[in-house]
Amino acid sequence: MDAKVFDAKTLLDNLFDNGILFESGVDGLYGRSGVFEEVIERFEKLVLKVGGADKATRIHFPPAMARQTLEMSGYMKSFPQLAGCVHSFMGDERDHAELLGLMAKGEDWTVKQQATEVAMTPAACYPLYPTVARQGPVPAEGLLFELVSYCFRHEPSKDPARMQLFRQREYVRVGTGEQIQDFQRLWKDRGQAIAEMLELPCDVDVANDPFFGRGGKMMANNQRDQALKFELLIPVTSVEKPTACMSFNYHQDHFGQTWGIRFADGSACHTGCVGFGLERIALALFRHHGPDVSAWPAKVRDALWGD
Amino acid sequence: MDAKVFDAKTLLDNLFDNGILFESGVDGLYGRSGVFEEVIERFEKLVLKVGGADKATRIHFPPAMARQTLEMSGYMKSFPQLAGCVHSFMGDERDHAELLGLMAKGEDWTVKQQATEVAMTPAACYPLYPTVARQGPVPAEGLLFELVSYCFRHEPSKDPARMQLFRQREYVRVGTGEQIQDFQRLWKDRGQAIAEMLELPCDVDVANDPFFGRGGKMMANNQRDQALKFELLIPVTSVEKPTACMSFNYHQDHFGQTWGIRFADGSACHTGCVGFGLERIALALFRHHGPDVSAWPAKVRDALWGD
Repeated sequence: MDAKVFDAKTLLDNLFDNGILFESGVDGLYGRSGVFEEVIERFEKLVLKVGGADKATRIHFPPAMARQTLEMSGYMKSFPQLAGCVHSFMGDERDHAELLGLMAKGEDWTVKQQATEVAMTPAACYPLYPTVARQGPVPAEGLLFELVSYCFRHEPSKDPARMQLFRQREYVRVGTGEQIQDFQRLWKDRGQAIAEMLELPCDVDVANDPFFGRGGKMMANNQRDQALKFELLIPVTSVEKPTACMSFNYHQDHFGQTWGIRFADGSACHTGCVGFGLERIALALFRHHGPDVSAWPAKVRDALWGD
Repeated sequence: MDAKVFDAKTLLDNLFDNGILFESGVDGLYGRSGVFEEVIERFEKLVLKVGGADKATRIHFPPAMARQTLEMSGYMKSFPQLAGCVHSFMGDERDHAELLGLMAKGEDWTVKQQATEVAMTPAACYPLYPTVARQGPVPAEGLLFELVSYCFRHEPSKDPARMQLFRQREYVRVGTGEQIQDFQRLWKDRGQAIAEMLELPCDVDVANDPFFGRGGKMMANNQRDQALKFELLIPVTSVEKPTACMSFNYHQDHFGQTWGIRFADGSACHTGCVGFGLERIALALFRHHGPDVSAWPAKVRDALWGD
């Protein structure tokens, strides 16, 4: 691959040609090779090495959550276009015959489905907040969790760094505002150190989330002005518009208030999270170091495959 | 937990009380503790130890696939009630205001969503068949793949062994009928040996899949008569109705014909797969050996945590 070409199509074709990703017929939905998976596993081990001493509590959630959690989170206000809900057929044999008839005629048979109670997880930490709230008062030293989840965002694209289904590894801190901001600063530093170990060029900047509609512009301005969210950006499919591969988020007491996550004195906790876009980081590595992992720079191989 | 009590509710409450599973508000949708995840990881390593010498090609698919793959697979004929499709909001700002209005009134806002091109994966091997077909003719010795995927089935239940989202590890064999039947026999033996190493009581029997409707009864009879699918059953929430924790499937040339998976001479390949229900196996282990993994029998600990 020409080291100067950074466009999305070239990278995606290169990944298909090298058998690193596999087409599915839908943009943003791909199979991953064993090597791609190994790179992700090794990156996760590196992150664990960096953050392991913090002794986070590991919880794992499936790639979808209660629809009610989506509704309460406020996500449908800000990013309605990205959310997904699971719909299923709930009819009888006659309805089933109609469904198959529509399918046979190439018509829209999904009208025979209804919404289930299940919604796709938009970010790894969303199912955590109600889970923490159910466990009762938060101790004064706060809490720290470690999560990995598939996330869904409906934004079909030929940019391989914009998948519809991708994995996020997250650390989530629950505590006082000061504890969260310390945590955010710590991981901003650690994130840049990790990028440096992997010889990936990066910048850290305030985030520009795609809030929906005109009202969304105000929310985006507010997010930037308050500097609540930072992203670690790496050129993957564009130099001018580098890809957010990590994010460092301070939610103030938004989730604490929404879910009733409280200290023993009844005051709402603040929360924050650091997220690693696992597919994006693997893509950045393949983009900068080439399709053959055995030919990656010695320093990078050592960071990923060394002890 | 009383060793004689095998009902679903007792087991689920026990898992919640011990912090092994976490409630989400929706039946069949749970968070998993770090220990639960470790048991699954260790079990997967054991399976890799048993099957590793076969040198399967590893491919990983996200938990959803192209809706067209679901449509072509025939799944909507047999199990329409279990399938799920992802629906998203695709409207403008006015539609968005209406959506938020419905949500605020507690009415069904999901009517503002439309079907995307994305469908939940019903079994780990479904996205593999079109992927194999795209790769051209199958060599005479056939192919062998290794997969792990989240799968979705819409069957809300208080039986923890019947989750809506769960993981399957699969080996998939593509080749001649004889190659597939050899593979099926091999894994039936290996599966029983694995259950024995884990001190889990088991039986292998022909499968009883929940085909939909009256027409489905015929398909179920046909499946039994032809002995195409076997299950390894372990008592988890019932002694009378033990849970299928592994399955050994011979699809004849169904997927070969459907997707055009062919040998160089143009004849359709046969396919078969062995599937491990990872959550079910973890549940069986917790059910039979108790909530504290450090107190599990020495032989079981050695099989999972030994070298």
